[in-house]
Amino acid sequence: MSKLYGAIEAGGTKFVCAVCDEDLNIIKRVKIPTTVPAETMTEVFKFFTENPVSAMGIGSFGPIDINRNSATYGYITNTPKKGWANYNFLGEMKARFDIPYVWTTDVNVAAYGELKRGAAQGEDSCVYLTVGTGVGGGAVVNGKLLEGFGHPEMGHIILKRHPNDKYKGHCPYHHDCLEGMVSGPAIEARHHGVKAYDIPKDDEDWQIVAYYLAQACLDYTLILSPEKIIFGGGVSKQSQLFPLIRQDFKELMNGYIKTPALDDYIVHCDLGDDAGITGCLLLAQEIEKKS
Amino acid sequence: MSKLYGAIEAGGTKFVCAVCDEDLNIIKRVKIPTTVPAETMTEVFKFFTENPVSAMGIGSFGPIDINRNSATYGYITNTPKKGWANYNFLGEMKARFDIPYVWTTDVNVAAYGELKRGAAQGEDSCVYLTVGTGVGGGAVVNGKLLEGFGHPEMGHIILKRHPNDKYKGHCPYHHDCLEGMVSGPAIEARHHGVKAYDIPKDDEDWQIVAYYLAQACLDYTLILSPEKIIFGGGVSKQSQLFPLIRQDFKELMNGYIKTPALDDYIVHCDLGDDAGITGCLLLAQEIEKKS
Repeated sequence: MSKLYGAIEAGGTKFVCAVCDEDLNIIKRVKIPTTVPAETMTEVFKFFTENPVSAMGIGSFGPIDINRNSATYGYITNTPKKGWANYNFLGEMKARFDIPYVWTTDVNVAAYGELKRGAAQGEDSCVYLTVGTGVGGGAVVNGKLLEGFGHPEMGHIILKRHPNDKYKGHCPYHHDCLEGMVSGPAIEARHHGVKAYDIPKDDEDWQIVAYYLAQACLDYTLILSPEKIIFGGGVSKQSQLFPLIRQDFKELMNGYIKTPALDDYIVHCDLGDDAGITGCLLLAQEIEKKS
Repeated sequence: MSKLYGAIEAGGTKFVCAVCDEDLNIIKRVKIPTTVPAETMTEVFKFFTENPVSAMGIGSFGPIDINRNSATYGYITNTPKKGWANYNFLGEMKARFDIPYVWTTDVNVAAYGELKRGAAQGEDSCVYLTVGTGVGGGAVVNGKLLEGFGHPEMGHIILKRHPNDKYKGHCPYHHDCLEGMVSGPAIEARHHGVKAYDIPKDDEDWQIVAYYLAQACLDYTLILSPEKIIFGGGVSKQSQLFPLIRQDFKELMNGYIKTPALDDYIVHCDLGDDAGITGCLLLAQEIEKKS
């Protein structure tokens, strides 16, 4: 009998649960609003009780605990999201469904999906950066998810301020880190409350945003040397950003490292909203084969 | 018959060649000044002709080409060092000794040595940063050398300037990147030509250097989540730096991520000058077993 695989892309706004067959055809998919665990997770449990699977990949909003030696491995940790702080996500799943799991971040699964089926297909490494309400990054290195004592938090790296930027920054921890300067709320606050999609494409603010994103690409390149840097998320749908980012990246790098051609290196995601679910399903298949 | 393994730690000042047995006991070791390839490599070839080995690990000064799909894989690339630019290091070795090789950077092999036998023993990941005449970083992720389209160049990441620092920076490419602000020559130039080891331990300049190194540790943590950050190189022998780096790191992180305890996280290397050779020999053993 053909095996089925499960995926949960657990986002701050909605959960997407999906089931696929061995050829990665998605058979069922459901969206569940992210409210409180008692509501959201009840629906998740119901979905996978009705649609049993052999293995599951979970990509969760964070911060999460991915350290297998930790007492809180599998938990969502210190999120401000009501009811989810210190929620034992993986433990609650395991208690109901005794199957192999891959447990990682929403951006790591998206990176994996893009590597295997999207913009970085054929490569062994990539960075996936989502720029939206927040800024988060995941990565694949040598074909495997980038994890260490915990997971990356690439959205909070240090930047050099743009000389024309008076905006103080939106991050409650670091003020003018990357997320503090280029998240959707930061872009709106800098532009006196105008929504990002209402700011003219040729406004100087986009040059400021691109300058910071170029710095991020530079640091990711210098530290990780990924074969692709892939952008997802609402802000990165502003396509006028890409030529600006590439130009600033080129100037900042100043010929020091020869990267892949920038049009092929700093790119928009291929899979769109499916990157995360695709990554989850692929990881579920792989863990099942290993088990 | 017992097998022997070879190592070349190819530095900008000297090459160290070594041979070990299966238990990693170093049987022979030689230091060769780095002059021009015709001189230095002749000595290297002679050493390994007289001391044949079954496999070899090479950690080279860079930049080098580690991309197996590249026509110049195995080359030292655009170094200003006379005679070494576009030198086919690995090719010249292979032409003389038909054995399996691991070819990577001097800092990657040091990271690997420290992971397996030094400060990061028992871990799966670490960053190794050398701060001396230049600044370079290597890393291990999921137990494997961190490589992508090329190798990391962590010494050139972007920094926020210290408010009291008037020094313009020493990097010919980026001026005030990490290497531009904390390399030995930068520290001396900031202090009007006084050698780093003659600058008083309580001078404010050390606070400035520590502030930049703390920023580097922060970005490495946010991007790589390594289990240890290990310092080597001449500048990092200034032990007064470590408490300052840890304090600045704590302030910059501002509680956002819970890292390992900082006294165990941001540390000096254990193996000293043997980190690179140890990494080379371990990598030689591993590649031989796989071949």
